[in-house]
Amino acid sequence: MIIPIEPALTRGPVLVIGSGLLGTSIGLALRIRGVSVLLDDSSPTCLALAEDLGAGRRVGPDDAPALVVVATPPDVTGEVVAAALERYPTAMVTDVASVKGAVRADLEGADLRRYVGSHPMAGREKSGPISARADMFFGRPWVVVPDPESTGEALAAVRALAIDVGASATTMDAATHDRAVALVSHLPQLMSSLTAARLHAATPATLDLAGQGLRDVTRIAASEPDMWTQILAGNATQVAAVLADLRDDLGEVIDALTDVGPGTWATLARTIAAGNAGAARIPGKHGGSPQAYDTVSVLIPDEPGALGRLLTLMGAKEFNLEDLLLEHAPRQAVGVATVSVVPGLGASREATLVEHGWRVAS
Amino acid sequence: MIIPIEPALTRGPVLVIGSGLLGTSIGLALRIRGVSVLLDDSSPTCLALAEDLGAGRRVGPDDAPALVVVATPPDVTGEVVAAALERYPTAMVTDVASVKGAVRADLEGADLRRYVGSHPMAGREKSGPISARADMFFGRPWVVVPDPESTGEALAAVRALAIDVGASATTMDAATHDRAVALVSHLPQLMSSLTAARLHAATPATLDLAGQGLRDVTRIAASEPDMWTQILAGNATQVAAVLADLRDDLGEVIDALTDVGPGTWATLARTIAAGNAGAARIPGKHGGSPQAYDTVSVLIPDEPGALGRLLTLMGAKEFNLEDLLLEHAPRQAVGVATVSVVPGLGASREATLVEHGWRVAS
Repeated sequence: MIIPIEPALTRGPVLVIGSGLLGTSIGLALRIRGVSVLLDDSSPTCLALAEDLGAGRRVGPDDAPALVVVATPPDVTGEVVAAALERYPTAMVTDVASVKGAVRADLEGADLRRYVGSHPMAGREKSGPISARADMFFGRPWVVVPDPESTGEALAAVRALAIDVGASATTMDAATHDRAVALVSHLPQLMSSLTAARLHAATPATLDLAGQGLRDVTRIAASEPDMWTQILAGNATQVAAVLADLRDDLGEVIDALTDVGPGTWATLARTIAAGNAGAARIPGKHGGSPQAYDTVSVLIPDEPGALGRLLTLMGAKEFNLEDLLLEHAPRQAVGVATVSVVPGLGASREATLVEHGWRVAS
Repeated sequence: MIIPIEPALTRGPVLVIGSGLLGTSIGLALRIRGVSVLLDDSSPTCLALAEDLGAGRRVGPDDAPALVVVATPPDVTGEVVAAALERYPTAMVTDVASVKGAVRADLEGADLRRYVGSHPMAGREKSGPISARADMFFGRPWVVVPDPESTGEALAAVRALAIDVGASATTMDAATHDRAVALVSHLPQLMSSLTAARLHAATPATLDLAGQGLRDVTRIAASEPDMWTQILAGNATQVAAVLADLRDDLGEVIDALTDVGPGTWATLARTIAAGNAGAARIPGKHGGSPQAYDTVSVLIPDEPGALGRLLTLMGAKEFNLEDLLLEHAPRQAVGVATVSVVPGLGASREATLVEHGWRVAS
């Protein structure tokens, strides 16, 4: 459903092995660009569904793909890559597993000149071909991980794939990649899971006090156990190192809280301040500091279409909406929408909303 | 700017001591309900600002408040409550500190019949009177914490205050409250801070791989160190207990990753699954399961007003928008808006968007 703009860089046919969320999304994105896509999956159901969704057609015995993308579960990726290198002796081969060292370890003895690893930094809480989206990779980083033996041709083919599906290609060696994702992806996943896991025995009255902070921290705790078990086990050394560092920091906080004394305040303040500094390092939109917008908060009654009516009014009055955050309180029939608008007209915009019967605060 | 609907339950004048974010917000909310508000603050600047914002007028020597709300920093709250109980011998007194046992411990020997603690579960990343909002407490839980000695009259006055500012009053004893907030508020704050703190040495290339998961987990890591040091130190015993439990769980994960063997997969899967179960216990909107809406994802080019144009179209076409999530990828000039709409018309709505030149995926 994405409208093609430029001719594709990728030379097909592309064989996508594995018709799950990522494989099917890659197929959909390439088909829209006019690239010929072949599909394969050990599950006939997934394969038929991906075909029905328009992600490509099932591979035949005489097909000769120019590029093979292995999008299987991570624990079999290395083995499937090795088999693809043998089966298609002229094809370039890549995979989309989120840990690269483990895949490489399974490829000893393979012809690595035609192999370049990939890690598209995209996903959803939902899995399977039915959740696939042609725009899954749009605007997302796609890490391209060449082996020292990889040819320039193989590297170019995989970068072209990333660009054709709308991602932003960035090149890194496997060790650097695995250290990086341990920190920015695997650590937050485990911290989210461990925090949410502590809620197992909480009373309903306790859970009713949950605010947006707990919801944000635990959102990704809803992720799929099977997939994450494979990812974490595949990057065990790097993840263990990052977790051990965090455990040291946590230990200092526990000590400071257990034996409250002159150092307690210093340890706590240092911990929160270090969090401030770390959070400030995460790039925002465009990689710069967050832009300064005026924000207006509006109460949204819980009636069908209330938010739509508000946004229609804002559109009609040229609010130039830049962002919108919706908050719902538990067991309450109202929400608060905080909208960010291009600065300069705050007061008159509030007046417009009030005139039309909305309750606002800025 | 909230339109008053019912007569206020609170009998004034209400003296708010402390003109920070919470105190000024309480003043603003009560003034809108027509309640007389008196203000006091040790900082003349904050006091003048709160007055200018319309949160009330500064207290005089002859004023006799019916209710005193202590909204000072938590480390002096007990002392200020005790002084207020003495200075205003007929007034009911409450405070808004987010830890209740510590305040109570500072009140030995005070006349506790007229005291009932409060903890409004509301706040912003920004602080000070300038960030105050009359709707700060709207739809939020407000925990009312009576002492065993508190009279029914004192309890009623504090519940009335909570209701008048739009909050949802819930009663709990101090120990139950402090255990609850250790789990749903103080634990996620520290996990967010500790996760963000680990980013201190990350390279820019590593940080460029940050996705929405890391952003969500570390959003509240931007919280204010001074305030949080006081909160955590004030609830040291309860927070240390929750953190120690989490450290045990973390230790199991580290062991599983350090010595990869037959038990590794089981430990990891159990950890992620326990996180699934915990996250599922957090009440959603209305306290029920999340409602099932159709979702449509639309690419938003980075042009001024693009989101506004989309929402105007959706409003005009009666999309009955229920929720909206905006995602921006780092250093990319596009975002993806995922909108939730009342189910049943998914396909025709997508066609409408495509017709009008938007790129969509569902």
